[in-house]
Amino acid sequence: MNIVILAAGSGKRMRSALPKVLHRLAGRPLLSHVIDTARALAPRRIVVVVGHGAEAVRAAVAAPDILFAEQAQQLGTGHAVRQAVGQLDSTVPTLVLYGDVPLTTPATLHALLDAAGAHAFGILTVDVADPTGYGRIVRAADDSVLRIVEEKDADAAQRAITEINTGIVVAPTARLGDWLAALGNDNAQGEYYLTDLVEQALADQVDIVTTSSTGIAETLGVNSRAQLAVLERAYQARLANTLLERGVSLADPARIDIRGSVDAGRDVFIDVNCVFEGAVTLGDDVAIGPNCVLRDVVVGAGTRIDAFSHLDNARIGADAVIGPYARLRPGAELADGVHVGNFVEVKNAVIGTGSKANHLTYIGDADIGSGVNIGAGTITCNYDGANKHRTVIEDDVFVGSNAALVAPVRLGRGATLAAGTTVWKDVEAGALALNPKTQNARPGHRRPVKQKR
Amino acid sequence: MNIVILAAGSGKRMRSALPKVLHRLAGRPLLSHVIDTARALAPRRIVVVVGHGAEAVRAAVAAPDILFAEQAQQLGTGHAVRQAVGQLDSTVPTLVLYGDVPLTTPATLHALLDAAGAHAFGILTVDVADPTGYGRIVRAADDSVLRIVEEKDADAAQRAITEINTGIVVAPTARLGDWLAALGNDNAQGEYYLTDLVEQALADQVDIVTTSSTGIAETLGVNSRAQLAVLERAYQARLANTLLERGVSLADPARIDIRGSVDAGRDVFIDVNCVFEGAVTLGDDVAIGPNCVLRDVVVGAGTRIDAFSHLDNARIGADAVIGPYARLRPGAELADGVHVGNFVEVKNAVIGTGSKANHLTYIGDADIGSGVNIGAGTITCNYDGANKHRTVIEDDVFVGSNAALVAPVRLGRGATLAAGTTVWKDVEAGALALNPKTQNARPGHRRPVKQKR
Amino acid sequence: MNIVILAAGSGKRMRSALPKVLHRLAGRPLLSHVIDTARALAPRRIVVVVGHGAEAVRAAVAAPDILFAEQAQQLGTGHAVRQAVGQLDSTVPTLVLYGDVPLTTPATLHALLDAAGAHAFGILTVDVADPTGYGRIVRAADDSVLRIVEEKDADAAQRAITEINTGIVVAPTARLGDWLAALGNDNAQGEYYLTDLVEQALADQVDIVTTSSTGIAETLGVNSRAQLAVLERAYQARLANTLLERGVSLADPARIDIRGSVDAGRDVFIDVNCVFEGAVTLGDDVAIGPNCVLRDVVVGAGTRIDAFSHLDNARIGADAVIGPYARLRPGAELADGVHVGNFVEVKNAVIGTGSKANHLTYIGDADIGSGVNIGAGTITCNYDGANKHRTVIEDDVFVGSNAALVAPVRLGRGATLAAGTTVWKDVEAGALALNPKTQNARPGHRRPVKQKR
Repeated sequence: MNIVILAAGSGKRMRSALPKVLHRLAGRPLLSHVIDTARALAPRRIVVVVGHGAEAVRAAVAAPDILFAEQAQQLGTGHAVRQAVGQLDSTVPTLVLYGDVPLTTPATLHALLDAAGAHAFGILTVDVADPTGYGRIVRAADDSVLRIVEEKDADAAQRAITEINTGIVVAPTARLGDWLAALGNDNAQGEYYLTDLVEQALADQVDIVTTSSTGIAETLGVNSRAQLAVLERAYQARLANTLLERGVSLADPARIDIRGSVDAGRDVFIDVNCVFEGAVTLGDDVAIGPNCVLRDVVVGAGTRIDAFSHLDNARIGADAVIGPYARLRPGAELADGVHVGNFVEVKNAVIGTGSKANHLTYIGDADIGSGVNIGAGTITCNYDGANKHRTVIEDDVFVGSNAALVAPVRLGRGATLAAGTTVWKDVEAGALALNPKTQNARPGHRRPVKQKR
Repeated sequence: MNIVILAAGSGKRMRSALPKVLHRLAGRPLLSHVIDTARALAPRRIVVVVGHGAEAVRAAVAAPDILFAEQAQQLGTGHAVRQAVGQLDSTVPTLVLYGDVPLTTPATLHALLDAAGAHAFGILTVDVADPTGYGRIVRAADDSVLRIVEEKDADAAQRAITEINTGIVVAPTARLGDWLAALGNDNAQGEYYLTDLVEQALADQVDIVTTSSTGIAETLGVNSRAQLAVLERAYQARLANTLLERGVSLADPARIDIRGSVDAGRDVFIDVNCVFEGAVTLGDDVAIGPNCVLRDVVVGAGTRIDAFSHLDNARIGADAVIGPYARLRPGAELADGVHVGNFVEVKNAVIGTGSKANHLTYIGDADIGSGVNIGAGTITCNYDGANKHRTVIEDDVFVGSNAALVAPVRLGRGATLAAGTTVWKDVEAGALALNPKTQNARPGHRRPVKQKR
Repeated sequence: MNIVILAAGSGKRMRSALPKVLHRLAGRPLLSHVIDTARALAPRRIVVVVGHGAEAVRAAVAAPDILFAEQAQQLGTGHAVRQAVGQLDSTVPTLVLYGDVPLTTPATLHALLDAAGAHAFGILTVDVADPTGYGRIVRAADDSVLRIVEEKDADAAQRAITEINTGIVVAPTARLGDWLAALGNDNAQGEYYLTDLVEQALADQVDIVTTSSTGIAETLGVNSRAQLAVLERAYQARLANTLLERGVSLADPARIDIRGSVDAGRDVFIDVNCVFEGAVTLGDDVAIGPNCVLRDVVVGAGTRIDAFSHLDNARIGADAVIGPYARLRPGAELADGVHVGNFVEVKNAVIGTGSKANHLTYIGDADIGSGVNIGAGTITCNYDGANKHRTVIEDDVFVGSNAALVAPVRLGRGATLAAGTTVWKDVEAGALALNPKTQNARPGHRRPVKQKR
């Protein structure tokens, strides 16, 4: 089939500088979700109809398999599809999707496409508790569709109908072109409505078939921030459920946010209020504490990430202990059994097996071997105001607390740094490095007194 | 009109040392919410009837426009209103509100007042799914109110009535005084009930009019912590919805807490689980990460506040990057483009355009120019045990990591501090300041060994 | 009575390496919850029937009052109970519970036991909105139970029955043994079903009595992670409600997690998203900020715990101020009025009345007196790579910022440490200790320039 995605609306009720279809759901533009769904159907063509903010929309989703059509004026859904007709393959049917209806599933669309086949006009409908505002599906006694009646044209009996039009339709492409060419705009808004094609199809004795979506969320559109929030939560609930089904334990499925993917091994536990972004991979038996943020992270089996940890573009080995309050920044690569504790930041640094930095430490641009102990308050001074330099700490080094390592510098294997030492020259293997300090005492010291103001 | 607010109850079920009306909803006493609503109606008089914990209640809400009446014994709602009558303007009607019913909206009360006019007895009613325990509104065939029947006096047909009395009434003041004077307490509790006025009004051929509230939350009272929590969430949902309508994106409207006001520009994004207190102003395109706490903060356009940041009485310019784990304390004033990163605390300090303090730093009582770089682990030593002193860092200074700045001290424009330096004397512009250190090495150092116990 | 707990299932749908009954709800194995409930009934015997993962299950719940029976093959609930019969006291009835049904309350079971008495066969039933999949309770016109009909055997009328079998039954033990011995497995699964005992009881003219559970959650079993999450939230809601009833204010009852017990005084406030583990005791007027984690902590009256604090095995006195971002680790003992501020870690240390450590500090293995001020960036260097040593700071000591205290070391009463000092020798009372430093300046310093790459 062809797929036309309508993405020209401005979304005035969003009160935004951003075109509506570029608003984000789970961290990605609404339109990108719809394009993903379209791609899952393996169509011949995908044509995105752009209008408001056309340039921004094109830039956001440009890809070799995406065609664009321009709808300069927004004159209705029928008008929008008409702009795309020239780019369609007329030998296969055309499915119309909406850039602001992000949660439709490929399974639901497959069912519609199968039902419609090559020749029928197919409509995706849904049963809702409150149909107010939607076009109702009016059926004959034999259940065949007679027409779609809009709210304002509906009589009392029709208003009671709870089966509504989702706007998602499929039609034979050549017919679609003819119908759109003949479509009128004799209505209050002076717009060309896609739903009016039903009449033409019936007049041409084309079968009207319908399939229904069971999940209401998958047919909902976004016209306001409130609706966007509703769909965000619906989507997050869907993702949480997928994790549960795969055998992940979630302390609260209503308090997890996934903006990307989480690939989890066996017996993973995720505590409340965690946020996942990008591609996150969690090995078997990984436990994530409450309130963690993980973005593009790989975590090895058996590793524990404690509360308030913030991991971004990092790789962590197996059986490591991270946090609470650990910050791993891009380029942090931690081997198995590494411990990174509270108020510790690691950036662009490799840390070897079993090494530990447990307290109040900044490790940037460093290569740290295995079996290293980094004392509390240690700082790698990696930046001279112009360039970043590297700190190398070989295996089994002991860095005393409150040390400053002025890069570039190398601490040889097994070296020891006394507490409070600033080093700016390499330390040879096995040596103790220290700044000689004298400790003076002035007995009977008189402290300053509180000044009056 | 006059407004009488009943606030004398003890709230035994709260199990608290605090009078019930002083329990907090969205950070403010229940009674303050009701007073705000009362003020929005621009009444001639506001009389708060106090009783249990009268002194604390008076102290909490004292203001020039608030009168108080004392109800020494709690003998029912009618008795309570009677204590206030002497302070009312008898030429305008009197509206009765409740200090423990915090969410009634001015719009709902305006509708009631308009319906009642100068002469009728007006009752605010509400339709509920389960009316158990409430007084039912019994109507005649012509829909006129016959009486209010309490649960225990209701027959089966009356119990099935779902329109209930909220207790919020308006009455002509002179009449009200007469009726209250004549009110009996011939009931099981021996109390004087305001609802019994309906009978007197009917006897006096005063019209009974009703209006209905559509939102059940706005007529609910607080008698227990559970009810308080229900109303807290209802109120928070209302505030979240207001933000959404104004064009703010919320990752989860059920996970935001506002205890005060949030004034947000265009295209602001607020991630999950943030708490706002006091007056918060967010410029266009501000993004707030998950789990942040903001209290009395102004944030400039385009600024990003990352996860776990805690901002209190701070001002931040445009295009700044704050957090994760940034703590801004009172008096932090950050210009445009400032970066304050993880595990950094700023208190009573001005930081100029584009300056950065990204890691593990304490900045207190400081004036920092523009283009300054503060290295990791830097501490302003602002306190000598008795007085606070100021650190001045002029433009373009580079402070190497792990520096200690013993205030009062000034670093002149463009000065450089070597890593690990303690300064206690001013540094002239353009100079490099350092503590000469010798780095010694003792080869073949023997480390301590683990002691047996 | 005797209690038999069936705990032999594998829980294939959990997709786990762990036996199903060892999955955790509120931090403890499902089976432990059931055993607690059983103990609350003061039975003569508790027999746990183990099968899948028998060894792990035994190890997890082993106790002097727990007997085990082994069900080598899982051949149905009747077969499971049969394995336990030999260990039962035949003079009292036997109650059958399920290791994967964790939320049944003792009150509900007491009602069932009372109704059944010594001679009847008692069934706990529950009314559900959607009975699909459950065994229906079929009753005669006189309301007596005729039989339990499984879903697949039910006709249309029976399927409409909403009263279902929970599987929880009580029976006279001698009879139970006979019935189980006679139980057949002539069904599709070839299993021995406990529900089939109803027929035998009727045949033997034993009375069938039922009682109903009002809370559906207490009869739900766990077969999937999704069901586990549902029960976790149901249990947490129950615990939150208990706190509310006891007079604790919760900012959001849906955002609190208790894995253990919280014993709270009067007027305690708990903000959103806190996690409690182990035994937590909170004194009167304690306020806990958002996003805190408390595990096995005692907090004195009037103490405030600010946002993002992580307290583990710590004791805190009255009127202390902790956090935000405070980390108290095991052995932290804080007296009244202590302040521990942001990015401060305290481990195995005693801190005296009114002492303060407000910023970026590590205190490990220390004894700190009262009235002590610890400056920002202070580190106790407690670890020499092999052993931990103790730092002693007597009353009224002032530790200047960025100090390193190399343990073992003692700072005498009233001593003062200059900022940036490293001490490794004891400081006598009243003295000022400092490392003499020279501050050099090299005017007109040329900074490094950015290297091209």
